[in-house]
Amino acid sequence: MAGRRDFLKLATGITAAMAFPIKASNDNYGRTWDKEFDIIIIGSGFAGLSAAYSAHKAGIKNIIVLEKMEAFGGNSAICGGLMCMPLTPMQKKLGIEDSAELMIKDMLKAGRGFNHPELCRTLATEAHKAYDMLMECGVKFQDKVIRLGGHSAPRAHLPESASGGGIVVPMHNYLRKAGIIFQNRTNVEEIIRGDSGVTGIVVSEKYDFKSGSNRGQFAYKAKKGVIVASGGWGQDHQFIKTTMPAYQKLESTAQPGATATMIKSLLSIRALPVMLDMYQLGPWATPDEKGAGPASFFADYAFAEGIAIDPKTGARFMNELADRRTRADAQLAVLASGTKEKPNMPFVFCGEATANHAEGFKAAYRDGAIKKSETLEELAKRYDVDINALQNSINEWNEIVQGKAKDPFNKPLDEKTILKPPYYSIRLSPKLHYCMGGVAITPNAEVIDSNTCEPISGLFAAGEVTGGTHGMDRLGGCSSIDGLVFGQIAGNQAAIRKV
Amino acid sequence: MAGRRDFLKLATGITAAMAFPIKASNDNYGRTWDKEFDIIIIGSGFAGLSAAYSAHKAGIKNIIVLEKMEAFGGNSAICGGLMCMPLTPMQKKLGIEDSAELMIKDMLKAGRGFNHPELCRTLATEAHKAYDMLMECGVKFQDKVIRLGGHSAPRAHLPESASGGGIVVPMHNYLRKAGIIFQNRTNVEEIIRGDSGVTGIVVSEKYDFKSGSNRGQFAYKAKKGVIVASGGWGQDHQFIKTTMPAYQKLESTAQPGATATMIKSLLSIRALPVMLDMYQLGPWATPDEKGAGPASFFADYAFAEGIAIDPKTGARFMNELADRRTRADAQLAVLASGTKEKPNMPFVFCGEATANHAEGFKAAYRDGAIKKSETLEELAKRYDVDINALQNSINEWNEIVQGKAKDPFNKPLDEKTILKPPYYSIRLSPKLHYCMGGVAITPNAEVIDSNTCEPISGLFAAGEVTGGTHGMDRLGGCSSIDGLVFGQIAGNQAAIRKV
Repeated sequence: MAGRRDFLKLATGITAAMAFPIKASNDNYGRTWDKEFDIIIIGSGFAGLSAAYSAHKAGIKNIIVLEKMEAFGGNSAICGGLMCMPLTPMQKKLGIEDSAELMIKDMLKAGRGFNHPELCRTLATEAHKAYDMLMECGVKFQDKVIRLGGHSAPRAHLPESASGGGIVVPMHNYLRKAGIIFQNRTNVEEIIRGDSGVTGIVVSEKYDFKSGSNRGQFAYKAKKGVIVASGGWGQDHQFIKTTMPAYQKLESTAQPGATATMIKSLLSIRALPVMLDMYQLGPWATPDEKGAGPASFFADYAFAEGIAIDPKTGARFMNELADRRTRADAQLAVLASGTKEKPNMPFVFCGEATANHAEGFKAAYRDGAIKKSETLEELAKRYDVDINALQNSINEWNEIVQGKAKDPFNKPLDEKTILKPPYYSIRLSPKLHYCMGGVAITPNAEVIDSNTCEPISGLFAAGEVTGGTHGMDRLGGCSSIDGLVFGQIAGNQAAIRKV
Repeated sequence: MAGRRDFLKLATGITAAMAFPIKASNDNYGRTWDKEFDIIIIGSGFAGLSAAYSAHKAGIKNIIVLEKMEAFGGNSAICGGLMCMPLTPMQKKLGIEDSAELMIKDMLKAGRGFNHPELCRTLATEAHKAYDMLMECGVKFQDKVIRLGGHSAPRAHLPESASGGGIVVPMHNYLRKAGIIFQNRTNVEEIIRGDSGVTGIVVSEKYDFKSGSNRGQFAYKAKKGVIVASGGWGQDHQFIKTTMPAYQKLESTAQPGATATMIKSLLSIRALPVMLDMYQLGPWATPDEKGAGPASFFADYAFAEGIAIDPKTGARFMNELADRRTRADAQLAVLASGTKEKPNMPFVFCGEATANHAEGFKAAYRDGAIKKSETLEELAKRYDVDINALQNSINEWNEIVQGKAKDPFNKPLDEKTILKPPYYSIRLSPKLHYCMGGVAITPNAEVIDSNTCEPISGLFAAGEVTGGTHGMDRLGGCSSIDGLVFGQIAGNQAAIRKV
């Protein structure tokens, strides 16, 4: 068996019209390469940009970053940009105690033990390199760090703009100045894998995402390596339905271009998938805005300083700062207790002091996703909750805040804010937010072959298209840093690869 | 994109020496077929035998069942043969209330909502067809049904021999008489997938599992279809380590031939994997016997009528009849509370009345895996437990049995047996028992392509090599019936396939 594998060839996506013979010496199957690059990076989000940065730093000149859509940046550009990093100068300045070990412990707990531990460790211990890179690229952070659900310390850093754009744009500008080629509207049709590993890709240029029209297919050679940093497939309803039927009707927070094209290409050349059917639901999502907008950002603050209520009981039903899966599961249970005639959708609310310093508050309040209730009566009426039960829940929470009672849910308390009117609230209903699954990689960001269980030469991956780092569930603020850390590693590994 | 897929070819496993051109009309890549069959079935366990039965019943004459090992039957032949079926004549005779809906509910709960619900439903609603088949093949069941962990009703049927051999042997004999060809020592090297789907396989004949020696490779044509019923890969340590690093050191209950050969072949031709990295741990396993032997069988009875104890606290630590993942996780937590110097391994024990009617008791007691303690003192000393704490746990349990106290773990009580000396006990340490993952199938047992999310023509799969039916965790006594139900469906679907 082992002997046979050494000779194994894979030819995928060859059309009948191009019926080339497979020859060991002929890795492009008789194709003429239309263009040649040292390193080809597929995707222009955090992972792709970071890969370009480190490849450039390693002295590689001819690097191209491909983007399928018109706009660069993918989901990274539209996300909140929250980034969890331990031991940063900002954390130290604010006197927050933290460590890579503590972050690893948090990640393993949220991942339910399904994490690939070496990937998890790599993320936490190399986060500081990503931080240094962001500083060099001119990214500016706000003068605070916040605690997201499941984290044992406040360690989420916010770009000044409170958006992923605050990271993507400075990096993009830095890399363009450094001579990296950026090419949008380029759809990868195939990864070419021959005898010696991955040697290039086939793309459609001038690709129009909506119509699929393009100016034809071209073969790009990658002398040093192909880096797949294409993100998740949260908008690929057919793929989600096939892998996880129960989630087929959930709204997704992903941008429209988040299809399964690249994960399918990777599976076609025998990359090993991990947790392919595992999706994360965002517990801060509301049906009253599209995807994850400013109301979701506000929710993180309302969860920390306010309480979430089950309308049927008027009581709290979860640790509002538990990890995302725990909270989403708790919300789904509340939702399931309703009927078609009498739905039961949970909500979270906080007081004015919290609203005033919460990211996203102004926009979401303006747009109507956040509701203001001047009094307890108004809040109770809005969500059809028993007013006495609701009053009890508020009283109990205020006792906890004042240290007079113990929280049965053990929520960590960073700010001790008494809940009082007026109240600001949003309805909660989980949305599909992140593809936990993807291809298996080594800590060197090499993609693993499903047959040999060894790396595929010349092929690297980073970010959401990979699986394993976060196990069954990912903590908030950890996908951005995942993309940046493993992007850096992939770029560097491709650069130093002997060919 | 869609247009290209129509022309998609896949050539895998072609060696350099066989560099055939890929042609649309040439599904065997220029190979001469060495042998031809109507239906080729890979694997001779429950799923394979059941597929052969239904294909035969549908009028197909030229059916071959291939087995890699010397002995037929795979894990099915060595398992306990417990088979959960609702609404059987035996259940009715014993006056047990049950339904397919109740079984589905139990399966979905254990699967944590990750089940592919249509597969789960198919299993429960078609179990009666498997029962009828077993009756026709001459399988004899014992005059009882038992309740396994996570099941809402006693619904596990036992073959007379209390072993899977009690099912495999009569089926094998029946099918041989019916003219099915059985061929052992045949290793499948490749599934041939061309334009029109799967057309055949390449095998090594006279294969010796230990040395890998064989009398060469041969191409078998399958006119109607190939059915993969090859089971799991519980002994493929490299594949387990790569997909789920945390489980790499666990002992497995699988037979030595349970390697990842077939799942790898399926991934090579682009079958969609589901839950590939999800493994079930057996909570009835003990380090004091190899794999899952008679002591594991005994454990099912001890769990039902006795109690499991954490030596460190002397207290119960789980519902001994929870689903397998819940119990295995609870045991792993107890084990993790020990140190290298002072390990802390849980144990389960019961009284003599239970031991006397427990399957596996005699053999496991003889072999030393089950220990007898004449007194409480002896039991406490054996496991280094505080005697008062242990006495309390026994007292509390006896109160529960007598209806004087409520069980904090809510274990269902079918037999009300007071715990009293002498005690019979085993140590508990979970072993890797079942591959939850595998290829995705439709309710018609058609294997799904990862690129199109549609069935691959001519390719069927059933049993442990498939994923999705049981979600994240499978209930006891449900893999046997899974193999039998989907084996029947696969055999029938291949038989009626228009070619």
